[in-house]
Amino acid sequence: MNEFDLIASYLAPLAGKGALGLKDDAALLEVPAGEQLIITTDTLNEGIHFKGGTPPDKIAQKALRVNLSDLAAKSAAPLGYTLNLSLPVMPSHDGVTSREDFLANFCRGLAADQAAFSIALLGGDTTRTHGPLGITITAFGTTDAPLLRSGAKVGDGVYVTGKIGSGFLGLHDHSSETVAHYELPMPRLSQGMALRGIATACMDISDGLVQDLGHLYAASGVGAEIELAQIPLADPAYDRMAQITGGDDYELLFTAPQDAELPPCTRIGTMTQSPNIHWLDEQGQNVSITKGGWQHF
Amino acid sequence: MNEFDLIASYLAPLAGKGALGLKDDAALLEVPAGEQLIITTDTLNEGIHFKGGTPPDKIAQKALRVNLSDLAAKSAAPLGYTLNLSLPVMPSHDGVTSREDFLANFCRGLAADQAAFSIALLGGDTTRTHGPLGITITAFGTTDAPLLRSGAKVGDGVYVTGKIGSGFLGLHDHSSETVAHYELPMPRLSQGMALRGIATACMDISDGLVQDLGHLYAASGVGAEIELAQIPLADPAYDRMAQITGGDDYELLFTAPQDAELPPCTRIGTMTQSPNIHWLDEQGQNVSITKGGWQHF
Repeated sequence: MNEFDLIASYLAPLAGKGALGLKDDAALLEVPAGEQLIITTDTLNEGIHFKGGTPPDKIAQKALRVNLSDLAAKSAAPLGYTLNLSLPVMPSHDGVTSREDFLANFCRGLAADQAAFSIALLGGDTTRTHGPLGITITAFGTTDAPLLRSGAKVGDGVYVTGKIGSGFLGLHDHSSETVAHYELPMPRLSQGMALRGIATACMDISDGLVQDLGHLYAASGVGAEIELAQIPLADPAYDRMAQITGGDDYELLFTAPQDAELPPCTRIGTMTQSPNIHWLDEQGQNVSITKGGWQHF
Repeated sequence: MNEFDLIASYLAPLAGKGALGLKDDAALLEVPAGEQLIITTDTLNEGIHFKGGTPPDKIAQKALRVNLSDLAAKSAAPLGYTLNLSLPVMPSHDGVTSREDFLANFCRGLAADQAAFSIALLGGDTTRTHGPLGITITAFGTTDAPLLRSGAKVGDGVYVTGKIGSGFLGLHDHSSETVAHYELPMPRLSQGMALRGIATACMDISDGLVQDLGHLYAASGVGAEIELAQIPLADPAYDRMAQITGGDDYELLFTAPQDAELPPCTRIGTMTQSPNIHWLDEQGQNVSITKGGWQHF
C-alpha cells in the first residue's frame, strides 16, 4: 500500500465535517459566532514520551488525550484535530509487522476515542522517518469564556480534580489502576466546561503539581498557601513528595472564589497576598520543597 | 538552558496575538465573522524532506512556506501557525554545536518569513527525539470563499502560476536559481487570494504537475486536455517529462472560466466532458504518460 492507499483505508473513515475526505490541501473549520477557537498541540516521540512496545491503539489514544486535557483546562468543547504521523521505515513494535498493521491498530484507538470524546479528524500528514515513531496531534475546541493560567485572585481557593500522583505511580508499575491512568489519562472535559465563568485561572497538571502550580503562580502573579495534607494522593500510603512532583496526572488545577459552586474537586489551599508558594505541613509549618526532597525551615 | 529557557529566549519573541506569550496550555484565535478558518499541516523530517546539513534558517523557512503554499491554494490569508520541534539530543548540522545554536538560527529564519508573509507564531511543542530532526508546522488562514480541488467545470481553462520543474531541477543542483527555489519556494499567496470567487478549483503543485493534475481530476470528476507545449518549463531545454513529474514546485494549479480575469499565469489546457486526462503533443496527438517516461499510442 502506498501513502494514498493507507490514508484512504485507515484515516479517511475517521474524517469529520470540514476534512474534505482528507483529499484536499487543507481543512475548513467554521467557528460559531461568539466563540473563540482554542488551539493546542503536543508531540509524542517513542522512547521519550512512551515506551517502545506500547500497543499502537494506546499510543494513539494517549496522544489525543493529552491534547484534550489542554482543551479541558481552557474550558473548551472539542471540535476536531489534525494528526501528523512519522512512521519508521521498519516499525519495531511488538506484534506489528508492517506499517499497515500499525496504522490499523493506531486508527482503532483513535476511532474509540473519537466516539468517547465527540471529536473527529480534520487533516494531517503521514510521512516516513529514519528515526523512531513520532506523533503530533493539534486539537481544536471552542469556548465563549476561555480559562487562562493568569487570573487567580487573592483569597481564591486552590482546587484540583481527581487524585494527584497517578501518573508517577503508573509510570513505575505501582498498581493496575495507576498503570491504566498513566497509559490512558482521562481528560477532564466536562469539569473544564463546568468551570466556564466560575474559575479565575486553570491549567492541566502534566509536569507535576509542584511545577505546574509554579506556572500558575508565575502567570497570575499572586502567591499561594497549600496545605499538603489536603492534597488527594493516588496512594496516601506512598511517598507524598514523589506523587506531587511526578508528571502525567492530567487533572485540572484551578482557582475560584471560595463561595463558588464547583464540579467535584478537592480544595488544597488559598491564593494569598504574600508572594511565592508556601507549602504547609499538618502543623501549619512552612515546608520547603526542593528538587529530590523537602525540608522544614 | 532547559526547555522553558529555550522557549522564552528564542520562540517567545515570535509569538503573536492569542499566543499568550507561549506560556499557557493553548492559544486563542478569533475568526472574523463571515470567514472560514483554513487549517493545513506538514511534517518535514531530516533525511526524508531535507538533506542533513541544510542550514537551520532555511529548514525553518521551507517548513513554513510549504504550509503557506497550501493556504494560498485555498485562497486564504495567513493568520498564524503552531510549531512542533523534535530536536535530536545531538544535532548533526554543520556548524551547529548545540541545541541553542540550532534554535537561534532556526528562529532567525522564522522571523524573516513571519515579516515577509504577515504571520505569527501561536504555540507549539519543543521536545527531544532519539531520531533525526523533525518539524511539524500547522498553519491557519481565513477566507470567505475557499477554493477546493473539486469544482472544475467542463470548458474551464486549466492554468498554472510560475514555471514547472524548478523543484526537480533544484533538487538536482541544475542552477543557482532552481536550487534557491527548491530550498525556499515562494508561496503564491497574493495569486491565491486574487482567485477568490473566480477559480472553480485550485491546489498547489507539490507532488509534480502530472500527479497533482490527477488529484484535481479525481476530486472534480471532469476530464482534461493538456497541451504539453504550453506548459511553462523552468528550463525549456531540459527533459520535459522530468520537470512535469518532479515535485516541490509549489506553484498553483487551477481551473477557471475561459473569460475570467486572472492574475499572471499560463493556460495549459481545458477541462473536458470525456473522462481521464489527455496529454497532447505539438501535433495534437495523444501522448501516454507513464511512470519513468512517455510514449505515443
